[in-house]
Amino acid sequence: MRLGRKILSFIRSARIAHFATADRSGQPHAVPICFVFDDKYFYSPIDEKPKRTAPAKLKRLRNIAENPQVSLVIDHYDENWSKLAYVLITGAARIMQRGQKHRLAVTLLRRKYSQYRTMAIDRRPVIVIKPKRITGWSAR
Amino acid sequence: MRLGRKILSFIRSARIAHFATADRSGQPHAVPICFVFDDKYFYSPIDEKPKRTAPAKLKRLRNIAENPQVSLVIDHYDENWSKLAYVLITGAARIMQRGQKHRLAVTLLRRKYSQYRTMAIDRRPVIVIKPKRITGWSAR
Repeated sequence: MRLGRKILSFIRSARIAHFATADRSGQPHAVPICFVFDDKYFYSPIDEKPKRTAPAKLKRLRNIAENPQVSLVIDHYDENWSKLAYVLITGAARIMQRGQKHRLAVTLLRRKYSQYRTMAIDRRPVIVIKPKRITGWSAR
Repeated sequence: MRLGRKILSFIRSARIAHFATADRSGQPHAVPICFVFDDKYFYSPIDEKPKRTAPAKLKRLRNIAENPQVSLVIDHYDENWSKLAYVLITGAARIMQRGQKHRLAVTLLRRKYSQYRTMAIDRRPVIVIKPKRITGWSAR
């Protein structure tokens, strides 16, 4: 997928995204996530920020197992609404537990977020999102 | 639904939320929205920020027509991850075109966002979200 320079830098500079999955009944579930983009895939770890349940029971992971269709939105809010912008990603997600791509994702995540350098994200699942469509919107 | 004072003030002070719908095939769609909460329902206008299409063709509205199940997340990001927090709302949405509740929503939205005072949101659809479950999470 060819992306314009503006969209790429907007995606790269964002610290969080909002990630929507849906279960097999079509009930959506939205959560804020930390992520990294390698210009082809988006990666988001199941990190050690306290969760209510064990990783395998996390709603987003159960939803992806039931229905891999996902949506990701990266946006910038400003009280001056002529500065609003967002990038919307529609795609398919899968879970990686280990392997070469998992290691790459962990390296990129630790480079972007110093907070991950002392967290054992290398031993936890990583969500990979393969974008099917990336759309940019801005108020200007 | 009884909400704790902390969750209520977190919801009320937020300027945006992220709203996820899904079409009948279960494909999720997440967008940032402006909203207001009257302690019972969440309201979000289809405002005049430039859109690619006419209101009736907007993806979020078509999705609600196909599948009223929605999810809303309100969160606070901070580089100090011990300050992270979010409130997750699962519920059902419908579209209002006019009427008493529509007028109430417009009044509340214009009170919260001065930007709406000069926008004709009174003549445009408003999404109403009836929460089924509201869950708070914080890193502490």
